[in-house]
Amino acid sequence: MADLLDDNDVAGLQQWLATHPPYEIADEMARAEPVHAALLLRLLDKDRALVAFEELDPPTQQKLLSGLRDQAFRDLVEGMDPDDRARLLGEAPAKFAHRVLAGLSPYERAMTAELLGYPEGSVGRYTSPETVTVRRHLTAGQALEVVRARGAAAETVYTLPVVDDERRFLGTVSLRDLVLSRPDRPVAELVVDDAPRAHTMDDAERAARLMQEANLLALTVVDNEDRVVGLLTIDDAVEVIEAADTEDIARQSAAQPWSGHYMSVGVTQLARSRATWLLLLIVAATLTVNVLQYFEAELAEVTALALFIPLLVGTGGNAGAQAATSVVRALAVGEVRTGDVLRVAWRECRVGLLLGVMLAVVGFVIGAVLVTVPVAVTVSLAIVLVCCWAAIIGSVMPLLAKRLHIDPAVISAPLVTTLVDATGLIIYFGLARLVLGL
Amino acid sequence: MADLLDDNDVAGLQQWLATHPPYEIADEMARAEPVHAALLLRLLDKDRALVAFEELDPPTQQKLLSGLRDQAFRDLVEGMDPDDRARLLGEAPAKFAHRVLAGLSPYERAMTAELLGYPEGSVGRYTSPETVTVRRHLTAGQALEVVRARGAAAETVYTLPVVDDERRFLGTVSLRDLVLSRPDRPVAELVVDDAPRAHTMDDAERAARLMQEANLLALTVVDNEDRVVGLLTIDDAVEVIEAADTEDIARQSAAQPWSGHYMSVGVTQLARSRATWLLLLIVAATLTVNVLQYFEAELAEVTALALFIPLLVGTGGNAGAQAATSVVRALAVGEVRTGDVLRVAWRECRVGLLLGVMLAVVGFVIGAVLVTVPVAVTVSLAIVLVCCWAAIIGSVMPLLAKRLHIDPAVISAPLVTTLVDATGLIIYFGLARLVLGL
Repeated sequence: MADLLDDNDVAGLQQWLATHPPYEIADEMARAEPVHAALLLRLLDKDRALVAFEELDPPTQQKLLSGLRDQAFRDLVEGMDPDDRARLLGEAPAKFAHRVLAGLSPYERAMTAELLGYPEGSVGRYTSPETVTVRRHLTAGQALEVVRARGAAAETVYTLPVVDDERRFLGTVSLRDLVLSRPDRPVAELVVDDAPRAHTMDDAERAARLMQEANLLALTVVDNEDRVVGLLTIDDAVEVIEAADTEDIARQSAAQPWSGHYMSVGVTQLARSRATWLLLLIVAATLTVNVLQYFEAELAEVTALALFIPLLVGTGGNAGAQAATSVVRALAVGEVRTGDVLRVAWRECRVGLLLGVMLAVVGFVIGAVLVTVPVAVTVSLAIVLVCCWAAIIGSVMPLLAKRLHIDPAVISAPLVTTLVDATGLIIYFGLARLVLGL
Repeated sequence: MADLLDDNDVAGLQQWLATHPPYEIADEMARAEPVHAALLLRLLDKDRALVAFEELDPPTQQKLLSGLRDQAFRDLVEGMDPDDRARLLGEAPAKFAHRVLAGLSPYERAMTAELLGYPEGSVGRYTSPETVTVRRHLTAGQALEVVRARGAAAETVYTLPVVDDERRFLGTVSLRDLVLSRPDRPVAELVVDDAPRAHTMDDAERAARLMQEANLLALTVVDNEDRVVGLLTIDDAVEVIEAADTEDIARQSAAQPWSGHYMSVGVTQLARSRATWLLLLIVAATLTVNVLQYFEAELAEVTALALFIPLLVGTGGNAGAQAATSVVRALAVGEVRTGDVLRVAWRECRVGLLLGVMLAVVGFVIGAVLVTVPVAVTVSLAIVLVCCWAAIIGSVMPLLAKRLHIDPAVISAPLVTTLVDATGLIIYFGLARLVLGL
């Protein structure tokens, strides 16, 4: 595929495009140079071009659109779903956003502007406004007629919000129930009246995880007066969850999340996403230099103590990182709540003790074989204490962060490691004074 | 809620259960003691009990079932979806599985046995066999009649596989298109004939990610002869993706994944999931002791060198962990392929250089202020080299793992950190010899 592009082999490309589904084409477009991606887009017929285009991430969409002439530009942005368009514009510079909005029909522009009014990360941004609603007093047969009349433009017709005369949300009815029941059965009998709803201003990730837990294909989105605004559909919800997981994973390695495709994001942008935390962490690591300076007399007297510094701080860091990672994930999927802090700390403390004792045995053997028994005793005792300490720090910090309304995922493995390094050294040299009588 | 359980306040519990949705009830059951969870289940009416029960993870389901009497036990297992039941049995001991199978009706038993025949992690295990298929020669109206006649037992009726007379897969038709088109329109005109399919033996995670990319509500599952076996539905696909993400996240912190709820998994099981890697890593860390022993003369001559060991190896480890995490995630979501190894290494090498130069400046200042300029020069040069080296190691290793058919997620932050520790120390002391003339 990349070869075809390099050779500018139009016939070969057309052949390739005809035999691959839009999502694979989109993946190739995201990986290709912008000029190549634009060529692929031009070679596709209009419908498939739109489907492939909608699969791209917003930064790639923006890059691609910027290189298009007006007619092709307008066709794409007019054809996009309103919620996809709002997400594209949410990340774009004002000038670009202006060009997009100017190219839209008044109807599409109004819908997009409404979605853009909701804050980033809110349910509103992901809402599909093109929804078929059903009045409560209809029969199943009449409701099916409503679907037939108005369903063509809707993003989904499988979940239909049921509303009263003021468009207030009463529950949902599924197309499945409408099709399977007798046509004269009242919709009121088919309504799921405890169907969950989300507010436009709610957190999109929470709403998406609720859909996952409740096995919903679409979640009704309402405004302050409980009037139906639209639906959050499962494909958007999956995208929200996956983006949140990707962000959490980036944060867990002390990087700031960025949106876009790994192969097309710039080197400086990658470096920038990682720089802030690395700077903070190296400054925090100065503490380890201070601690070691404080114990410099002991270090000079028993140089053998220095040999185990990387092993000890590494082991403590690993144990702390494991605890932090478990708790951050359990918080993300809703298995742990901030109120569980004492229960979690107690669990992790026992896990740390078990692991610490096991590792201390190994540490003792390594120390006794390579150096001396007294140093080995110091190292192994330090391992037990550091593992417990690291497990407690690693598990409690994400819960504290959550309580302070900080994303728990920022309690990354590198952060825990760095914090455990300095305190671990204090434990180590404190023990060395006791055991070795320094 | 926990208070109500502790007080055995049945009236209060019934009130609470009546006003909460099944997925919230399931969450409370997973967090509660088994005897409390069983009480909650008994207090629910049969239908809601089943829905809540199906939301639980297999280990909790098994614990709960084991405590039930025969009638309640049979009601629950008979009511479960066949694919959920297969997953429960896949993780359970033989004796328990036997009790479940013995309690089933012959029809349900046959379906479950078939799904259990597919290996764990395969698409087959997640397939819903209760599917409505449509013959190609029908009209839209006739196809709707088929849905009406046979749809009640099916897991979904929104995606309908279209088959020939030998039940071979030809494509799919959506209920939406059937409802929206004229009743006399032939199904053949509505078929999506390039609809993707998955084979029963395919990897479930890959199939689920394909559904996400292609925005499918259900993916047709076929056997070796291309005959329709059933559907992989989006709710199961989301579960598969989320479980895979949770596993990757655990592996990224050097822990083995376990299934179940964080708050109900045992302390020893948690410790066991983390022990193997910690042991391997502490043994690998012995290398750092060897390296330092080799440079013991230099350490004794300039003790100040020891002060920067944690800062240096920590910084290198952090940079390597960031690179590894980015690449592992990009591989998981399909943005990077094994063939990209040189491109990725070159990108990450430049990122590492940029970050290394920036951090070296900070390292120089810390060194010059706290110790001496020559030591500061050594430290800052080491930081540049270690950051580049760590970024290359961290990014290339996941790609190599993938090529060797090892899960790339095992290239965890702790593993990269440990490997970078030893090599980083060699770089550091090698530079010290040059710069300080030792």
